[in-house]
Amino acid sequence: MRPTLGIGMVGHAFMGRTHSHAWRNVDAVFQPALRPRRVVVAGRDPDRTAAAAERLGWDESTTDWRSLLTRDDVDVVDICTPGDSHAEIAIAALEAGKHVLCEKPLANSVAEAEEMVAAATAARADGVRSMVAFNYRRVPAIALARQLIDDGLLGEVHHIRARYLQDWLLDPEFPLAWRLQKEHAGSGALGDIGAHIIDVAQFLTADTIEGVSAMTHTFVEQRPLPSGADDGLSGTGGEEYGDVTVDDAALFIGRMHSGALASFEATRFAAGAKNDMGIELYGSKGALRFAFEDMNELWIHDATADPATGGFTRVLATEGADPYSGAWYPPGHVLGYDHTFVHEIADFARAIADGTDPHPSFDEALSVQRVLDAVERSASAKGAYELVDS
Amino acid sequence: MRPTLGIGMVGHAFMGRTHSHAWRNVDAVFQPALRPRRVVVAGRDPDRTAAAAERLGWDESTTDWRSLLTRDDVDVVDICTPGDSHAEIAIAALEAGKHVLCEKPLANSVAEAEEMVAAATAARADGVRSMVAFNYRRVPAIALARQLIDDGLLGEVHHIRARYLQDWLLDPEFPLAWRLQKEHAGSGALGDIGAHIIDVAQFLTADTIEGVSAMTHTFVEQRPLPSGADDGLSGTGGEEYGDVTVDDAALFIGRMHSGALASFEATRFAAGAKNDMGIELYGSKGALRFAFEDMNELWIHDATADPATGGFTRVLATEGADPYSGAWYPPGHVLGYDHTFVHEIADFARAIADGTDPHPSFDEALSVQRVLDAVERSASAKGAYELVDS
Amino acid sequence: MRPTLGIGMVGHAFMGRTHSHAWRNVDAVFQPALRPRRVVVAGRDPDRTAAAAERLGWDESTTDWRSLLTRDDVDVVDICTPGDSHAEIAIAALEAGKHVLCEKPLANSVAEAEEMVAAATAARADGVRSMVAFNYRRVPAIALARQLIDDGLLGEVHHIRARYLQDWLLDPEFPLAWRLQKEHAGSGALGDIGAHIIDVAQFLTADTIEGVSAMTHTFVEQRPLPSGADDGLSGTGGEEYGDVTVDDAALFIGRMHSGALASFEATRFAAGAKNDMGIELYGSKGALRFAFEDMNELWIHDATADPATGGFTRVLATEGADPYSGAWYPPGHVLGYDHTFVHEIADFARAIADGTDPHPSFDEALSVQRVLDAVERSASAKGAYELVDS
Amino acid sequence: MRPTLGIGMVGHAFMGRTHSHAWRNVDAVFQPALRPRRVVVAGRDPDRTAAAAERLGWDESTTDWRSLLTRDDVDVVDICTPGDSHAEIAIAALEAGKHVLCEKPLANSVAEAEEMVAAATAARADGVRSMVAFNYRRVPAIALARQLIDDGLLGEVHHIRARYLQDWLLDPEFPLAWRLQKEHAGSGALGDIGAHIIDVAQFLTADTIEGVSAMTHTFVEQRPLPSGADDGLSGTGGEEYGDVTVDDAALFIGRMHSGALASFEATRFAAGAKNDMGIELYGSKGALRFAFEDMNELWIHDATADPATGGFTRVLATEGADPYSGAWYPPGHVLGYDHTFVHEIADFARAIADGTDPHPSFDEALSVQRVLDAVERSASAKGAYELVDS
Repeated sequence: MRPTLGIGMVGHAFMGRTHSHAWRNVDAVFQPALRPRRVVVAGRDPDRTAAAAERLGWDESTTDWRSLLTRDDVDVVDICTPGDSHAEIAIAALEAGKHVLCEKPLANSVAEAEEMVAAATAARADGVRSMVAFNYRRVPAIALARQLIDDGLLGEVHHIRARYLQDWLLDPEFPLAWRLQKEHAGSGALGDIGAHIIDVAQFLTADTIEGVSAMTHTFVEQRPLPSGADDGLSGTGGEEYGDVTVDDAALFIGRMHSGALASFEATRFAAGAKNDMGIELYGSKGALRFAFEDMNELWIHDATADPATGGFTRVLATEGADPYSGAWYPPGHVLGYDHTFVHEIADFARAIADGTDPHPSFDEALSVQRVLDAVERSASAKGAYELVDS
Repeated sequence: MRPTLGIGMVGHAFMGRTHSHAWRNVDAVFQPALRPRRVVVAGRDPDRTAAAAERLGWDESTTDWRSLLTRDDVDVVDICTPGDSHAEIAIAALEAGKHVLCEKPLANSVAEAEEMVAAATAARADGVRSMVAFNYRRVPAIALARQLIDDGLLGEVHHIRARYLQDWLLDPEFPLAWRLQKEHAGSGALGDIGAHIIDVAQFLTADTIEGVSAMTHTFVEQRPLPSGADDGLSGTGGEEYGDVTVDDAALFIGRMHSGALASFEATRFAAGAKNDMGIELYGSKGALRFAFEDMNELWIHDATADPATGGFTRVLATEGADPYSGAWYPPGHVLGYDHTFVHEIADFARAIADGTDPHPSFDEALSVQRVLDAVERSASAKGAYELVDS
Repeated sequence: MRPTLGIGMVGHAFMGRTHSHAWRNVDAVFQPALRPRRVVVAGRDPDRTAAAAERLGWDESTTDWRSLLTRDDVDVVDICTPGDSHAEIAIAALEAGKHVLCEKPLANSVAEAEEMVAAATAARADGVRSMVAFNYRRVPAIALARQLIDDGLLGEVHHIRARYLQDWLLDPEFPLAWRLQKEHAGSGALGDIGAHIIDVAQFLTADTIEGVSAMTHTFVEQRPLPSGADDGLSGTGGEEYGDVTVDDAALFIGRMHSGALASFEATRFAAGAKNDMGIELYGSKGALRFAFEDMNELWIHDATADPATGGFTRVLATEGADPYSGAWYPPGHVLGYDHTFVHEIADFARAIADGTDPHPSFDEALSVQRVLDAVERSASAKGAYELVDS
Repeated sequence: MRPTLGIGMVGHAFMGRTHSHAWRNVDAVFQPALRPRRVVVAGRDPDRTAAAAERLGWDESTTDWRSLLTRDDVDVVDICTPGDSHAEIAIAALEAGKHVLCEKPLANSVAEAEEMVAAATAARADGVRSMVAFNYRRVPAIALARQLIDDGLLGEVHHIRARYLQDWLLDPEFPLAWRLQKEHAGSGALGDIGAHIIDVAQFLTADTIEGVSAMTHTFVEQRPLPSGADDGLSGTGGEEYGDVTVDDAALFIGRMHSGALASFEATRFAAGAKNDMGIELYGSKGALRFAFEDMNELWIHDATADPATGGFTRVLATEGADPYSGAWYPPGHVLGYDHTFVHEIADFARAIADGTDPHPSFDEALSVQRVLDAVERSASAKGAYELVDS
């Protein structure tokens, strides 16, 4: 019998549901050396938290997230709350010796993120692991892309083109959910979805962004306050209105430290785009393209091959060449969004068992946070090129 | 507390794993009135069955599938074995008053399938439910297609074009797995994957096939016998060879009772096609196209709209307009192969709780079986049009 | 100064316009050794023929196609009339020593086609050239496909899947144009568009069809007689109705002499399909896919490559690897439908200048005609496998 | 008999060939009231110019472009030379009372472009017409898009995303052709292909760019001098090297006067992209997407329709709803790159005959030139937002 890995999760909305799915399934698919057990979920409202525990398969529920820190049967604290509580929970958990998986973006400010990194660094010395949930790294096609790039597919990278387009704010009467409030979410499209494409771009190139010229915009400046429960993503508005305090869209162009040029566009106002996260990389030897809505496909181009028969090849990333897809089904039996969380949690559990540091680390997430900061500085400075702090 | 629904599953290979995934997740997503419990899994080899139980999350394992029939804590027998044992297990389970979910194809012959229908019919009188696992009906895009057709999207159907293309037998040294042996599998590509597209075509049109002209072929007539465990889908061959006794490919054209023309092609020799199940329907008022490798997309055409701006619309079936996708994630957060099994099992569990008959019933699966039979008769008769029995 | 090649064209509707375009442009792009001159166009109606000559750039017009045969300044007779006049014109022209380019299908019956072949064979002895206008062979992507197949891309061919889907007859009030009348067109979708995919399948594989099981259907059995000029493809209907005497759709499955399985579907009732001619070939070593509506793209799969990064590669056939695209524009500057006719006519003019026999020859077109005949025989025999005569 | 429109063309390389094609075909397809006659082509080298005249079908050739201005049989001067001679030729021609069609970009600097506009304005008073050859406006799908936008498809525009990706400079040994020399080409990717997407973005939205934050880059700073004739697009390099004085890539983000956000990326270093010009527009009521390599397709989204069946519709722009495609072939018979020039010239000839001013005018092209200037200013100012002059 394998030893268990006790999980305490904080938050049970969209991300809490998705993480629960991952904890529920990771063992059957990847059998990490430690067998995860869903011990306790923490939330604000006792009834809703208890109902979530029952539905999502957690043994217990609590309204006191701090209670997780003193339990012997909780080894991991999995943080699925809005960004404004990440720092407090993560630092406390790390100090209590709990491994931490934290949703992205790491924090709502660079200062908070730096404190979290400090806590993670201190805890690491005691064998306490920490990781940030940039799940798109665990799309099999993205993981395969990273392998191919490591093997030299691209050569010197010339261009990165990244986008994350959604349209769920198109309706001006959509309510002022917490994701539209700076004090809770830190920023809007920028931190919520822009952070993903920054991380993926940096992950794929094993490089970081040097600086950016940016522009942000809020198309709808006032929205009705939510009339009911606020899950951040849906709901209806009431009669009173409040100010939208985050960006609806963020565009930026920049340079990588390698010299590659990069463009990023994150928006919640691209009509018809549901979850159109995509990235293209063009290098001296090849290129690749990925679009999440067709997440099982990676398009690769070998620029060194005969142009007569060259082009972009649609690779269906279900062959097991990446670290994940082989654990599931035969080729062509495609995976979906929630599988990426199973992969993420498998890697996290494996790192804990192996005593290694999982990725993306808090440091890597801080690097994303600093890009967000540079974007906001540049946008405030009318596009002037702002260096990313390091 | 909701009452439980005790599940006993027979078989733990590819389908057993996938059904286990579905039983594991259905409650968190769909919360049927009866809460499924994975009670016991039956297999041939005690060690491998015990290991599967541990991995897939079943409370117990057994090598005696008949023991399931007498257990009070087993309400459902879920049959995930090769086709040659379906009839025996299903009939015994139904007679024992257990609800039965049976993998497809229903049986290896029309005669067996008819006996199974008789058993299902008798059991139905006692409130015992039976269903066949044609999971492609539960792809959200397919379910949405059915709704749109019911609402009149197509008008009179003129053409059905269905395909199921795979390439896993391309290597002539791939072993003679049980799926290539008539006594275990009944037929080859025809019954394994052709059955799916027959069912989907009949499901979408709410019509049945009148008759067919067919052709089947075995490209590689002898293959090495499997050298190790035989899961039907993979493995390596030994030094001895045996005869392939099933088809590698089956092509047929036919007519629906409505008069629509239909073409079907199922093969395991389409190089580069991994799981390319697809269907196109063309009618007097519109058309639709679906391809499983992009399973979240349904392409629809409204032939009554202005041709200037008409065409095929890519509908991303994640909006919750179908019966399934709304239970998962926000729009654009795509689903995968295994979600179809969660949907299937949700519908099955719901039917048991509601006291209604789930679909596809054994009768519907018998209708597919009769098409398989007509295909084989026509292929033997050099393509002569053979009527499907009714 | 290069010598001229005098052209006399018979017919000036859709194909006449397209051939005129080709004769007008071939010299600027391909500069054949003989410089084509558009000498005279023949038609039925003097005014409409004169107008066509003026518009399409022919020096003269006539209502007497036989007058072309005795003119010294006419070297080529280009036949763009409906199929019922092909044999008479072609045979007379060949006997008069004129090179002949004839639109497809070659004839309305095998008997006629055989007479035409006899005439072509006799004329060939005197250096008189003949060719049939199966223009899809001259799509750069198709020509490239043929080269790649010759170089071994596919290995042994297992499957051919060909389709030609249109929807212009969907409206039951579309008039009974000549293309719907057996005495003029020979057959319906079968000979008009089915002939193209038969030719392309035979061309690409350098093989011929052994036999077929077929089904044809006429969805709308009576249509209004055309109220005005009948170009075969458009117009409005009057008050009187007549019988549609050709097929609206033809489906057939068959075997190539090599043993490959093949399926074909030609229809004018596929709602939303405008000119969806497509072909897929699957072999032991690779595969390819082509769809005319994206005619600059050829999709190829190398089954011998690493499956981890394998898949279908989208080759944009504008690199000049085929015999045609290099004469036009830089890579990526895509070509269209009418370019295929320029290519066809360039090859034809080149063959005349070189004293070689152009392809497809009348013999090759007869082979297509015999497939059409076998399809009709099989359809009459309820799908029984009918051998193609040879 | 219609009166003729005598054409004198200056330059006979890539654009000269393409314009010749258009002048050769426009009459057969669009029959403008004035019948174009290819009178004379001017070039530098007498032999090469004479050969081009013969090949491309011009009556005469000359090495003195000024001789065109005094000929009575020349009504139009068509300028197909590099940008450094546009101003001189265009102004002289306009002053001589000749209608002028000028290739893009209009000039190599704003100052030159302003002089050209002044000359065009003066000439316009005398009925002399002028137009700039931004041919992408004449892609049927783009023209259709403009109509749909005029009809309200988009509502208020939120986002424009435009790209023009090529890869022909990827090889560092590609020679230093004139397109890489600032004194001849004005700029690199920016003016050559960036100008196209600026024009299309402004055309489609009937709006102009207010300001930009930009970044340009030259990846390969020295290249071999061309060893032979320099057509600007191909050739081989010699042993000596020279400095590349233009950008290889230009990225910029900006705002339209309407408030819409816009991003642009033009590069000759996107491996695998041949002529990937594309634009996406997202508005409050709908969206559209276009990619030139699939130039017959326009993708439109109606955000006001039922989301259950909504999405992007692939409109095949061959139905004749746009001003061009109906003149060619039946639906689905796709057009190519050179058809856009036929359309452009048809509109130009029509405007001359009608006595109206064709578009894009020199003023509109000046507006593009001013954007190019703002991009260069911003790039020099490290991305600071620079207003476009007006």
